[in-house]
Amino acid sequence: MADYDLVIAGGTVVTPADTFRADVGVQGDRIAAIGLGLRGARTIEADGLLVMPGGVDSHCHIEQLRKGGGADEETWTTGSASALAGGTTSVITFSTQFKGGGILAPLAEYHRRAAKAMVDYGFHQIIADATDTVIFEEVPQVVASGVRSLKVFLTYDPVHLDDRQFLRVLAAARRTGALVTVHCENYEAINWRTAALLADGRAAPKYHAWSRPSVVEREATHRAIALAEMVDQPIQVFHVSCPEVAEEIARAKARGLKVWGETCPQYFVLSADHMDRPGFEGAKFMCSPAPRDAAASEGLWRMVRDNVLDIVSSDHSGWSYESPVGKRVHGTGAPFRDIPNGVPGLASRLPILFSEGVTKGRIDACTFVRLTATNPAKLFGLYPRKGTIAPGTDADIVLWDPGKQVVIDNGLMQHIIDYTPYEGLEVTGWPVATLRRGAVVMRDGKVQAEPGSGQFLPRAPYHMI
Amino acid sequence: MADYDLVIAGGTVVTPADTFRADVGVQGDRIAAIGLGLRGARTIEADGLLVMPGGVDSHCHIEQLRKGGGADEETWTTGSASALAGGTTSVITFSTQFKGGGILAPLAEYHRRAAKAMVDYGFHQIIADATDTVIFEEVPQVVASGVRSLKVFLTYDPVHLDDRQFLRVLAAARRTGALVTVHCENYEAINWRTAALLADGRAAPKYHAWSRPSVVEREATHRAIALAEMVDQPIQVFHVSCPEVAEEIARAKARGLKVWGETCPQYFVLSADHMDRPGFEGAKFMCSPAPRDAAASEGLWRMVRDNVLDIVSSDHSGWSYESPVGKRVHGTGAPFRDIPNGVPGLASRLPILFSEGVTKGRIDACTFVRLTATNPAKLFGLYPRKGTIAPGTDADIVLWDPGKQVVIDNGLMQHIIDYTPYEGLEVTGWPVATLRRGAVVMRDGKVQAEPGSGQFLPRAPYHMI
Amino acid sequence: MADYDLVIAGGTVVTPADTFRADVGVQGDRIAAIGLGLRGARTIEADGLLVMPGGVDSHCHIEQLRKGGGADEETWTTGSASALAGGTTSVITFSTQFKGGGILAPLAEYHRRAAKAMVDYGFHQIIADATDTVIFEEVPQVVASGVRSLKVFLTYDPVHLDDRQFLRVLAAARRTGALVTVHCENYEAINWRTAALLADGRAAPKYHAWSRPSVVEREATHRAIALAEMVDQPIQVFHVSCPEVAEEIARAKARGLKVWGETCPQYFVLSADHMDRPGFEGAKFMCSPAPRDAAASEGLWRMVRDNVLDIVSSDHSGWSYESPVGKRVHGTGAPFRDIPNGVPGLASRLPILFSEGVTKGRIDACTFVRLTATNPAKLFGLYPRKGTIAPGTDADIVLWDPGKQVVIDNGLMQHIIDYTPYEGLEVTGWPVATLRRGAVVMRDGKVQAEPGSGQFLPRAPYHMI
Amino acid sequence: MADYDLVIAGGTVVTPADTFRADVGVQGDRIAAIGLGLRGARTIEADGLLVMPGGVDSHCHIEQLRKGGGADEETWTTGSASALAGGTTSVITFSTQFKGGGILAPLAEYHRRAAKAMVDYGFHQIIADATDTVIFEEVPQVVASGVRSLKVFLTYDPVHLDDRQFLRVLAAARRTGALVTVHCENYEAINWRTAALLADGRAAPKYHAWSRPSVVEREATHRAIALAEMVDQPIQVFHVSCPEVAEEIARAKARGLKVWGETCPQYFVLSADHMDRPGFEGAKFMCSPAPRDAAASEGLWRMVRDNVLDIVSSDHSGWSYESPVGKRVHGTGAPFRDIPNGVPGLASRLPILFSEGVTKGRIDACTFVRLTATNPAKLFGLYPRKGTIAPGTDADIVLWDPGKQVVIDNGLMQHIIDYTPYEGLEVTGWPVATLRRGAVVMRDGKVQAEPGSGQFLPRAPYHMI
Ligand SMILES: [Zn+2]
Ligand SMILES: [Zn+2]
Ligand SMILES: [Zn+2]
Ligand SMILES: [Zn+2]
Ligand SMILES: [Zn+2]
Ligand SMILES: [Zn+2]
Ligand SMILES: [Zn+2]
Ligand SMILES: [Zn+2]
Repeated sequence: MADYDLVIAGGTVVTPADTFRADVGVQGDRIAAIGLGLRGARTIEADGLLVMPGGVDSHCHIEQLRKGGGADEETWTTGSASALAGGTTSVITFSTQFKGGGILAPLAEYHRRAAKAMVDYGFHQIIADATDTVIFEEVPQVVASGVRSLKVFLTYDPVHLDDRQFLRVLAAARRTGALVTVHCENYEAINWRTAALLADGRAAPKYHAWSRPSVVEREATHRAIALAEMVDQPIQVFHVSCPEVAEEIARAKARGLKVWGETCPQYFVLSADHMDRPGFEGAKFMCSPAPRDAAASEGLWRMVRDNVLDIVSSDHSGWSYESPVGKRVHGTGAPFRDIPNGVPGLASRLPILFSEGVTKGRIDACTFVRLTATNPAKLFGLYPRKGTIAPGTDADIVLWDPGKQVVIDNGLMQHIIDYTPYEGLEVTGWPVATLRRGAVVMRDGKVQAEPGSGQFLPRAPYHMI
Repeated sequence: MADYDLVIAGGTVVTPADTFRADVGVQGDRIAAIGLGLRGARTIEADGLLVMPGGVDSHCHIEQLRKGGGADEETWTTGSASALAGGTTSVITFSTQFKGGGILAPLAEYHRRAAKAMVDYGFHQIIADATDTVIFEEVPQVVASGVRSLKVFLTYDPVHLDDRQFLRVLAAARRTGALVTVHCENYEAINWRTAALLADGRAAPKYHAWSRPSVVEREATHRAIALAEMVDQPIQVFHVSCPEVAEEIARAKARGLKVWGETCPQYFVLSADHMDRPGFEGAKFMCSPAPRDAAASEGLWRMVRDNVLDIVSSDHSGWSYESPVGKRVHGTGAPFRDIPNGVPGLASRLPILFSEGVTKGRIDACTFVRLTATNPAKLFGLYPRKGTIAPGTDADIVLWDPGKQVVIDNGLMQHIIDYTPYEGLEVTGWPVATLRRGAVVMRDGKVQAEPGSGQFLPRAPYHMI
Repeated sequence: MADYDLVIAGGTVVTPADTFRADVGVQGDRIAAIGLGLRGARTIEADGLLVMPGGVDSHCHIEQLRKGGGADEETWTTGSASALAGGTTSVITFSTQFKGGGILAPLAEYHRRAAKAMVDYGFHQIIADATDTVIFEEVPQVVASGVRSLKVFLTYDPVHLDDRQFLRVLAAARRTGALVTVHCENYEAINWRTAALLADGRAAPKYHAWSRPSVVEREATHRAIALAEMVDQPIQVFHVSCPEVAEEIARAKARGLKVWGETCPQYFVLSADHMDRPGFEGAKFMCSPAPRDAAASEGLWRMVRDNVLDIVSSDHSGWSYESPVGKRVHGTGAPFRDIPNGVPGLASRLPILFSEGVTKGRIDACTFVRLTATNPAKLFGLYPRKGTIAPGTDADIVLWDPGKQVVIDNGLMQHIIDYTPYEGLEVTGWPVATLRRGAVVMRDGKVQAEPGSGQFLPRAPYHMI
Repeated sequence: MADYDLVIAGGTVVTPADTFRADVGVQGDRIAAIGLGLRGARTIEADGLLVMPGGVDSHCHIEQLRKGGGADEETWTTGSASALAGGTTSVITFSTQFKGGGILAPLAEYHRRAAKAMVDYGFHQIIADATDTVIFEEVPQVVASGVRSLKVFLTYDPVHLDDRQFLRVLAAARRTGALVTVHCENYEAINWRTAALLADGRAAPKYHAWSRPSVVEREATHRAIALAEMVDQPIQVFHVSCPEVAEEIARAKARGLKVWGETCPQYFVLSADHMDRPGFEGAKFMCSPAPRDAAASEGLWRMVRDNVLDIVSSDHSGWSYESPVGKRVHGTGAPFRDIPNGVPGLASRLPILFSEGVTKGRIDACTFVRLTATNPAKLFGLYPRKGTIAPGTDADIVLWDPGKQVVIDNGLMQHIIDYTPYEGLEVTGWPVATLRRGAVVMRDGKVQAEPGSGQFLPRAPYHMI
């Protein structure tokens, strides 16, 4: 007689702290039991597989609205497919604001679009124009609706905030109990250096990295921390690219501040050299902050082990390479300044981190789970519903073959983008099945979910990790 | 129909990483399931209680043989009762060596005595005389028998080792895959200072602390780390009393060395001032290293939060206050040098750490579990059998009432020692039941176990944490 | 027969490194010899006195032009008198720029006004509007004329520069071989906090300190260093108020950057509490950055001893207390935002530093000389002509009575300002005579110099110290 | 008409802080004046030369008594010649103690032998046996006689002290106001590693470096500092070989302790690779601690610039290569353990430090003077008589040609040792004349001094630098 709707049998369960052989019993959309000899109406054999919480990708861009109209190429259906193919079951994407406009209306549009999602989802609310209306009227409503994090850019036309506006956002977040996430690079310094490079005829993709050296990232990170310290507001620093930047976070933590740091797979496996490929090829690797070098990557691993960097997200932000509206929107001869930034990574996040981290012995499997699921869930108010394997939590589970060797190619990514910057990268360890709230939504690479089956995740206040 | 022999129902399970409401199903002596709505032949209601792994006390002294014959007052039955009363289900005690003798014979005697244990147990093998026979013949046998840690003293007549002997022990441990644990204080410096104090008529208990300032502990800790680094052998530093000492461990970890640190409740709640009580009373608080001051205690909490100190053990080492063979063995006018060192703490370890740590908001419950159960189990090769709550592991469980307010008195301790240094200390949070391999061995303070029901734990190689 | 025009006989000569008894022979306006038994046409007996290099005050404001017309109260004659009374023989003041205007014209005006000086002088060129004309045409001329340092403000209406303009100044300095000095506080953060305080009715002088906590100074300091690092341009950070800020300089030095730090006597002996005096009295102590507290002062001494802070200047910037154009220009009920900033300190700089530093045993006399004369001379291109006692250098000498006890009162200051923030401060050590290029220009407090006897000091490139 | 017996005319005087063109007037054995246009009975033209204080070599071994009778090869006449040839005018050598003997008698013998010196000299008193007689009766006499520093070895048969004896020496120094200098390496660790290497057949000279890795030096350094901290006694750490060791000194200084560090030229230009030369050749480079590698050398320069290492001495300790009583005393096939340690360096100290430091731009000339003359003079109680150029000080002067290029060969060294480890090293900068108390004792390499013309220097208490 079956006790559970479904039993994942014989696998090795990985929680944020423990690794043990056990069955996992699922009832409805929740985990009901972890035990030995569980009996289910259905059974999935997981011998030799790791049974881990579904990935939580707390930083990715999907169907982000563009100023002129339209949206990012990556749609909720393709983006969801890519996430599920890669073992990720929850995402936090962005709701944007355009200067002169409010945030309620775009957020409604984001909800409308996300209704096609096949993963569970939440939003960070970008503040690009800290008007009184936005700060005092709209932010409280948005936060109360479960969008419990505000995002600010310290660089990028036209969204960057100056320090005054940033302080207003920090104060608004403090009043409403939201977290603030920050893209930290110095706007003026990048503009100044960019103008100098272009004036000098240095326009190829590789000069993207020259235009924004790590010192501009370290500067903005220190500044963001200092202003947050002044307002007494917790922040998360997005996409830390190198240990010098992480050191600012470490110093803040040592002072007792609530400052957290994220990094992304691109900073572990890409480098500035990738942007120096012949022709326009370098554009495929352009993202901000720019990838640095091998020493920086090794330093990031140290910062991960020392609990300075808590989260590894994808910052999935795709622009197709061949499409006229992608990387080459301004032509293949465009100066680096005019080439859209961002690399896709929803599907490759977990495999790259597992292979470079766990397989190569830099971290253990529990740390992998913390970085990719538990910590993002905790920091962004989704825990314990998401981010661990325990009775009562959503049955978001990825079955992982730790020995499977795969050469990454773009077909495996299942995103809409026509390339992956990791083409040809060999990884060991791969997701073979993904369950989302108890339903098998990916099996052996085949995504099987209905558009619209994803749920909006209203989020609780951040849980201090 | 019951699926399990026993179900602990409705409690809040605390693992090293997660806290969630669930039932725990026990089959035989193991945990079989963690789930919702489990059915057991018997049920223990745990509503409002925390369900945590039984404590692992990796440093305590029980029936330790004395040179002149006889043994420590604390017996395996009383010591076990104290442990179970305090929520601890596994202990690691010591097998001693006397100069001129071997280690096999005493170890057999320790096994014989421990046959009365009511907790599960293992041994650290003290090396006090690093002869060729011991190092090359006996250590390999002892380690192979599951006594996988060697203990050395860098101070204390007559057990202290000089650097040459210490190096021999480190090398022996490396060859056999054992861990080395170290009592770090500088022997000659303490002797020199002690002689000066006594010559100066400063003999009262409080001068114990003067005789061994933190600099002698820091010195020996740095030396132990350096010699271990030279031999490439992992070590654990016992009973770190202050942050200056912990800083040496932090530096070692930052260099990538395998060095771990332990501290004890006495360093969180006692201070040198306790030894300055009138008359002989100060003797009750004498232990080595000596407790420091409130700032040192606060610094230790920081070191715990920064993962520099991984384990909190009791260093239970009792000497009765009124007994003629206890603290006053040389009379109540004895100079501090001649008063036996050590304080009892088996039963009070978990309540003090919970109250000072979790209740007062310095650490969360998961960290409490890691410090008192998971990490000692991992470091000393007992994990995953001990130290967590997961299917397949021993059903060693403590049910904890987080809101229960208790004033510590010696009767609650259930040890043989006639006092506790924590008499009168108010704590919030208390163990209300203890299960050892599925059997309820303590309920509401009443220990109900058969002498001899404890098992010897042959230990595996240390698991790097 | 006389070998020298003048011999200072029998004193204790203090150079940046040595202290020894010797006569100093002066020929014309230069030191010609340091020796024993020198014979001079005239002799000044210096038994029991220290013979030190005349002070070099590399940061003070004299007759600075005001936007609406007119200039600071302190004139070149009164400012010179104050300097000489206090043992200072060289000053570097400021030439300002007004937005919309150039820098050549004001500089000419500053030269015209300084023609009345009785001390030797140079200028820092403030850049408040980094237009192309200024940056590319005027800065090279100004620097070539011997004004070899540019000054920027990162706060203060209307002179503050944003990061883009600051980068332009840094680059201009790099091209022309000038040093850049920086007032480091975050403009927007101060404005934001100020608005909040005033909205809250917190307008009294003491809220000046609240409006600009040390974190805004640390932020701007780190930013200034980062942008200078990006441009590879040496900078000096003005008036460091506390050790947290100095730590940013220490970190920069450890990275090998050419970054220097200055502090001022007010940060050793004043604190935020001074601004909390009853009524309008607090205005007397308002300066920016704001003085902090006793712990900060002690920390600054440590930073001085560790060679992180190289220079102690006065930042003399006087506003009379009773004058209708001074502190109370907007009335005694003006909110702190509208009260002019700055405290006078030309005459008190050396006595306070000597008394608090040398007399109290925090530094030795050679360090005093380095901080007040040698280092400013080196950093600002006046060394070896100024800043030491050696043959061939200008005979700028202060005779110092190290045991003289003085209670500071405003009369002793000889400036035009009607108060001193140090009224009543007891100091031990006082200048009893000052020589400027061989001429005795102050004796026992009596200044005896002709207006116009001071010389413009065209400065050489900074000498890396 | 002459004012001075001798004038050094037209050179560039380098003091610890300043560099300026001036004449130096000498009267009798003292400097009488530094000035322009001085007139002397005799004149030495110094155009284009640096005029610097004669070197003070605070650590060298000359005619050190050997246990079996006899003394080191280097005699007071040859050692003095070598010192003078290299620009050094004062040395501090060692008076030894043999176990079982006292220190007064050997010291008398050292005085007797040093009566042939041509340089001024003092002694460090080695304590090899801290008996009551030595500690309580002899040390006070020795210190009172002007031998104001005690030297201890933490390694080396038969002179090494254990921690108890070391503490007794530290306490004796504290009572008598002497400084303690320490050779820091862990005795037992070296013995243990040496035995292992020899048992393994690894006996060639290069294994000398293997037998004493930097960790044993760091260990002993930390221990020496800790024990000195406990006793509150200042110490100097001899011959720091690498930055890890210097870091312990830096930490101690940051805690406010009086701990100073010395390094030597061998650690800047030799490395462990030198000991790996074919055959017995490696023996030429054997000294303790062992030279490390290029990264360590670069790190030492950083520690010099950061004022962590204050003094550069030679540790001249020569053993001829071909002599049957030198390096090959036990044959050219002797295991490294039996090959005498030490390299000669009296004459090469200043040229190597100048060339590697000043010529190559790592330090300036004033720093060179501080490291080689001022600081040793200050720390060892010879300042201001020695160590600077100022009126009233001894006229110990070296005239230095900063542009002279020399290839070091053993003939230039003028010591008795038959080789130099620096054979073939090219240096830029060379001493062309040396004056000792006003007398020209070396000119163009020709030493012209009478044996016995050197003076014993009774030393004052250390002057805190
Ligand atoms: Zn971003
Ligand atoms: Zn992004
Ligand atoms: Zn112990
Ligand atoms: Zn113990
Ligand atoms: Zn300023
Ligand atoms: Zn100013
Ligand atoms: Zn030595
Ligand atoms: Zn030596």
